[in-house]
Amino acid sequence: MGLTRFKLVLEYDGKDFVGWQLQPGQRSVQSEVEAALEKLCGHPIRVHAAGRTDSGVHALDQCAHFDTSAERTPRDVLRGLNGSLPADVAVVSASVAPEGFDARQWSWGKVYRYRFLGRSARSPIRRHRVWNLRTALDAEAMNAGAQHWLGEHDLSSFRARLCMAATPVRKIKQIGVNAVGDEVHLEVHGIGFLRHMVRIMAGTLADIGRGKRPPEWAGQVLEARSRQAAGKTAPAHGLELRQTLYGDGPPPWKR
Amino acid sequence: MGLTRFKLVLEYDGKDFVGWQLQPGQRSVQSEVEAALEKLCGHPIRVHAAGRTDSGVHALDQCAHFDTSAERTPRDVLRGLNGSLPADVAVVSASVAPEGFDARQWSWGKVYRYRFLGRSARSPIRRHRVWNLRTALDAEAMNAGAQHWLGEHDLSSFRARLCMAATPVRKIKQIGVNAVGDEVHLEVHGIGFLRHMVRIMAGTLADIGRGKRPPEWAGQVLEARSRQAAGKTAPAHGLELRQTLYGDGPPPWKR
Repeated sequence: MGLTRFKLVLEYDGKDFVGWQLQPGQRSVQSEVEAALEKLCGHPIRVHAAGRTDSGVHALDQCAHFDTSAERTPRDVLRGLNGSLPADVAVVSASVAPEGFDARQWSWGKVYRYRFLGRSARSPIRRHRVWNLRTALDAEAMNAGAQHWLGEHDLSSFRARLCMAATPVRKIKQIGVNAVGDEVHLEVHGIGFLRHMVRIMAGTLADIGRGKRPPEWAGQVLEARSRQAAGKTAPAHGLELRQTLYGDGPPPWKR
Repeated sequence: MGLTRFKLVLEYDGKDFVGWQLQPGQRSVQSEVEAALEKLCGHPIRVHAAGRTDSGVHALDQCAHFDTSAERTPRDVLRGLNGSLPADVAVVSASVAPEGFDARQWSWGKVYRYRFLGRSARSPIRRHRVWNLRTALDAEAMNAGAQHWLGEHDLSSFRARLCMAATPVRKIKQIGVNAVGDEVHLEVHGIGFLRHMVRIMAGTLADIGRGKRPPEWAGQVLEARSRQAAGKTAPAHGLELRQTLYGDGPPPWKR
């Protein structure tokens, strides 16, 4: 009996998870999805995501794959998983994966969004979604700062001390900061991300947005190639994985 | 020693409240605000809102007033309350009320928004914010239906059986349904609202949006003047009080 590989698109509210990855005795997204898959397919199943997300980080489009020997249609998978997954995680779509598909290896990049608020009062409704800096933010200055990071760079300044990546060089395809209603959004489209990278970028831009530093400081932080040079790591709950990008096969640089 | 009347603008996440109003042994927004006010001012305080909201309904701009003999500045009130209120309710602004101000009597109207989603999969991130009908929605048909309700009408069809209002006649100043991203939003600007009015309107428009009924049905429901004629009461969690409107004094019809 052959194995069928399925591709899943998942959405989750990161608040009550320790993050994507399995951790013994903890509630991870992966553990919930694997439990639901075992129930659906009748055998233990490992699920592989395009990338990990930290505790508290949300995802609107996390991609993952799994293999099963059970005969299930994509519709069975979508309905079966959504019927047994808890309320804070859901499958948005399920499909039979193309030949050779691997959620991590085939990923052409990802888009993250970081949401800032600059309101003097707390926001109860958005308390798990935005980082409220409690002071007015200059989105234009933040955007000017962020443009220093466009392209391929040694991003050692934006890398958690515990980051295990072999190299700190990463390519940022697009980056921008925009005012959206009363919020300010940082969007980063990158090819591969270092641990806490977007959150350290967000913490650095926060200092520019509230006028503690000029936009040029963002370039100096980059050049310093040192975590100490950057701002603080912004809280996880302002971050969301918005898109995981795929083509018809793995990108050339992973072949 | 005189009394000072303060005006508050409150935001709350309705999920874990029984609604605005005090209910013995239950967690209401009013009870939390009154407890925080007593702590701040050192005497028991009654707070009066522009209107009640049901259990699960959110508010971005609920207005309220209270009187105190304690000498407090608006800044003291804002900081003091936000320091002791729980995370799901906050004061957005506090000011000394104009002479004669009363949050209910001076209200010129309110704007409510009802958020629909028409996605086959659940949305974990928005599960406490939108009513997901799980099928595509025709926002234009919903809007055409809603226009039958514009103006002053006997709204008996959109009134909960338990509604205590003296008359079912209410004036709708503006009403509209729009597609916003992947959601559909109903906005109702009214002068006074009946119990469950917006939620019954939302439930009625849901049947039009998913094609069970034509837009003209909305007019027939209105004319029937009977709760039985309308759709179901839409769930509370999709509803938010967006604005409470004030002028320089009470509106002419309340003088």
